[in-house]
Amino acid sequence: MPQPTRRYAFGRADEATHPDSIRATLAEFIATFIFVFAGEGSILALGKIYKDSGTSAASELIVIALAHAFSLFSAISVSINISGGHVNPAVTFGALLGGRILVVRAVYYWIAQLLGAIVASLLLRLVTNGMRTVGFNVAPGVGAWHGLILEIVMTFGLVYTVYATAIDPKRGGLGTIAPLAIGFIVGANILVGGPFDGASMNPARAFGPALVGWRWRNHWIYWVGPFVGGGLAALIYEYMVIPTEVPHHTHQPLAPEDY
Amino acid sequence: MPQPTRRYAFGRADEATHPDSIRATLAEFIATFIFVFAGEGSILALGKIYKDSGTSAASELIVIALAHAFSLFSAISVSINISGGHVNPAVTFGALLGGRILVVRAVYYWIAQLLGAIVASLLLRLVTNGMRTVGFNVAPGVGAWHGLILEIVMTFGLVYTVYATAIDPKRGGLGTIAPLAIGFIVGANILVGGPFDGASMNPARAFGPALVGWRWRNHWIYWVGPFVGGGLAALIYEYMVIPTEVPHHTHQPLAPEDY
Amino acid sequence: MPQPTRRYAFGRADEATHPDSIRATLAEFIATFIFVFAGEGSILALGKIYKDSGTSAASELIVIALAHAFSLFSAISVSINISGGHVNPAVTFGALLGGRILVVRAVYYWIAQLLGAIVASLLLRLVTNGMRTVGFNVAPGVGAWHGLILEIVMTFGLVYTVYATAIDPKRGGLGTIAPLAIGFIVGANILVGGPFDGASMNPARAFGPALVGWRWRNHWIYWVGPFVGGGLAALIYEYMVIPTEVPHHTHQPLAPEDY
Amino acid sequence: MPQPTRRYAFGRADEATHPDSIRATLAEFIATFIFVFAGEGSILALGKIYKDSGTSAASELIVIALAHAFSLFSAISVSINISGGHVNPAVTFGALLGGRILVVRAVYYWIAQLLGAIVASLLLRLVTNGMRTVGFNVAPGVGAWHGLILEIVMTFGLVYTVYATAIDPKRGGLGTIAPLAIGFIVGANILVGGPFDGASMNPARAFGPALVGWRWRNHWIYWVGPFVGGGLAALIYEYMVIPTEVPHHTHQPLAPEDY
Repeated sequence: MPQPTRRYAFGRADEATHPDSIRATLAEFIATFIFVFAGEGSILALGKIYKDSGTSAASELIVIALAHAFSLFSAISVSINISGGHVNPAVTFGALLGGRILVVRAVYYWIAQLLGAIVASLLLRLVTNGMRTVGFNVAPGVGAWHGLILEIVMTFGLVYTVYATAIDPKRGGLGTIAPLAIGFIVGANILVGGPFDGASMNPARAFGPALVGWRWRNHWIYWVGPFVGGGLAALIYEYMVIPTEVPHHTHQPLAPEDY
Repeated sequence: MPQPTRRYAFGRADEATHPDSIRATLAEFIATFIFVFAGEGSILALGKIYKDSGTSAASELIVIALAHAFSLFSAISVSINISGGHVNPAVTFGALLGGRILVVRAVYYWIAQLLGAIVASLLLRLVTNGMRTVGFNVAPGVGAWHGLILEIVMTFGLVYTVYATAIDPKRGGLGTIAPLAIGFIVGANILVGGPFDGASMNPARAFGPALVGWRWRNHWIYWVGPFVGGGLAALIYEYMVIPTEVPHHTHQPLAPEDY
Repeated sequence: MPQPTRRYAFGRADEATHPDSIRATLAEFIATFIFVFAGEGSILALGKIYKDSGTSAASELIVIALAHAFSLFSAISVSINISGGHVNPAVTFGALLGGRILVVRAVYYWIAQLLGAIVASLLLRLVTNGMRTVGFNVAPGVGAWHGLILEIVMTFGLVYTVYATAIDPKRGGLGTIAPLAIGFIVGANILVGGPFDGASMNPARAFGPALVGWRWRNHWIYWVGPFVGGGLAALIYEYMVIPTEVPHHTHQPLAPEDY
Repeated sequence: MPQPTRRYAFGRADEATHPDSIRATLAEFIATFIFVFAGEGSILALGKIYKDSGTSAASELIVIALAHAFSLFSAISVSINISGGHVNPAVTFGALLGGRILVVRAVYYWIAQLLGAIVASLLLRLVTNGMRTVGFNVAPGVGAWHGLILEIVMTFGLVYTVYATAIDPKRGGLGTIAPLAIGFIVGANILVGGPFDGASMNPARAFGPALVGWRWRNHWIYWVGPFVGGGLAALIYEYMVIPTEVPHHTHQPLAPEDY
């Protein structure tokens, strides 16, 4: 149902307790859990492998990129119809800036995403017989500012992809492959950014392992970078790419069907 | 055709001999065969390669993950319209708990899935000139309980994905990529769990090679874990995520079109 | 337009000169060319790499599997609407056995497929500054009969996938991902069969490089195996899996839209 | 809206300043940026990895192929509804030859594509703390003419895929997976051509890194090859494969919906 103003972002009074909000929040929690479990887990799995055998860095990079791409694709698929398939606080932030989600729902999502990442990290620590989760940091020879710019650039590409394939009301049949396009741009970006700063593009992905492994060095990069890059992408897509000539721009703040 | 009660799980009198049941059971057999042949086969293929050359563990892990992801994707694609594309006793168990399949049909599926896995393992032994199938066990340094929890967690993600993309009546266009989302979450989970417990998530996948290779150590993990994790995912999705406001919840126990 | 008998396989008098036949034959030629160029080319590319550096057999296997899976996916995509996307004489043979294609058109397709493979192999020899194409043979320690059974089993899975996703009149939305399911089952099978017999599953894929590289040892395996396995899959799917209760089974021998 | 002549390629007077043109040009810029950033970036990432560790050439090849395939898939997905998803001057050239795009718009696209590639290369230089972008050249033992023919052949396959899956008015549901088919044929071709001439198939992909890294040896190959191969594919598909019996061939020079 179209609504008078498009950027009405504080919504229904019952937003916080409406069953739809709760289901969507649960969907975000589980989806982020699935993604962080596989993403961080693949890094621990390599640690397990390479305790005895030699190193094979390019193969490692492929393992990490595929684990993230495949699991993010599935995580978005399982949540896109229920919560919009954010699985990433920076995506939620972009959707908020673009007026596509209510503030109260965004806060719910952020909590669910962080909780999902923490539970995934705790379970990884348990099933691996106590391996310490790794999280993110810049590589030797790369400064914090390089890492920050890299996170901005990569998250820009990610959130731009989310907007074009999953949010744009004119996306049409493209919506079918949205989860794949989003999962694979993350996989591609890890193949680039992995050796430099780990390529997080997702504050929840960075926060869970950092908390459980208690590693906070340069952690701020992985919050500031994704929020700046994701916000930028959302603003550019929302105001410059989405055509103004679509007047029946249904708002329906977070209706999954509309997503 | 909608039916009065939703969890009517003992079905039509002719269920066991109805041509649809037989075709669906055949479809499960062939699909599980395709999947186990490629999955277990990729492990034997690596054994063949590495008899002479050195080791390259991360590449091995990628080979195994891709062989499973690709073949499961195809196996689900070829059976989803006929049997619902379970290819996994734990998925069938989840569908049974959620009231989506009749008991008699579930038993048929389980038999077909186990037979498919056994025939695939026998043929692998034949074409490889007698290589002994490997199956699953926990890695050194990982306890049976770690493996059990890992199987629970990973199968939870798998069956949750099945539910969200292939069963949920509100899945919409997502159904098109369901086989891919399911295949890829298995691929991602193998990249995580492979070095720890082999990452089966599928009792048929574990049973066929165990029988033909006669390796039963810790085999119970690969039955208990997937059934617990898969059952949990089915219950959570069926009762907490699927909206109650869809009253025309067509039951049609296993109608492929409904799947 | 439905026709009286379903297995009417000798068709219109103008079949051989009808523009549709010619376009479909051209489509088969180009699609097979694309596939063989990438498939055989990836093997030559590895030869180029490993002249100086050491060996890394599992990574090699991934390169070959991905090159085949990706290029076959694209090759089928570009031809499925025009010729049905066979790209493989064994698939054409299966479609012929199942009464899905006219004999005259099948012969056209076979010639186009073999020509596509030969031209791809010649161009590979040219652009690689004369590298001899490799083709297929069984590995040391594997007998010709092992290779034959392996080709039968793997091509069975391939043609069964083609039938379920691209031919079955009840495939529905599955048709969208048919090229991907077919490409990926080939990729998975290469990860299994590659180290044993090369995993061709396609007589044109085997013939082109064999001719240009003049390597004929055990070449018969790669014709007999795929035809037996592909024919078996077609018969089983056509007569046992496709429901008999679909009476309006439009024949339209090779109409791409119907495919 | 159908128009009298089909190859009316100089279009509306306001083409250059129409908001649609500007949005489409922006879409091309960002999409090409995303693709070049990941493609060239993956090569720099390997440089970073292998400064200390040994070499693993096949894994390197996989990293590069996947980075290009995944990012091109996403780049096309995010722009296909807005600009047609060219992301490649050779694709734009093919569309121009086939009468599918106006000259003025093609020039806009070329500028946007080159700018996207340059900005991506500059940012890569910045975030990698000054690594010199690599670009393309033929390998030792391969002549310039070999590289030229290879680029022609590979770009032929690429643009043929673009035409069949994204332009052909009879493509139907295939349009949904067009970005994937295009991304994956590039990935497959890199697995073949990578060790010989780098496998660019895209003048913008070659130009940006060449300019920023100031490497011009054999650079002409990566313009002439893609334009010849892409133009050839466009002409063959437009005049030989697309059926003449589709009279209501809507021109609508670059309307994304029509794409």
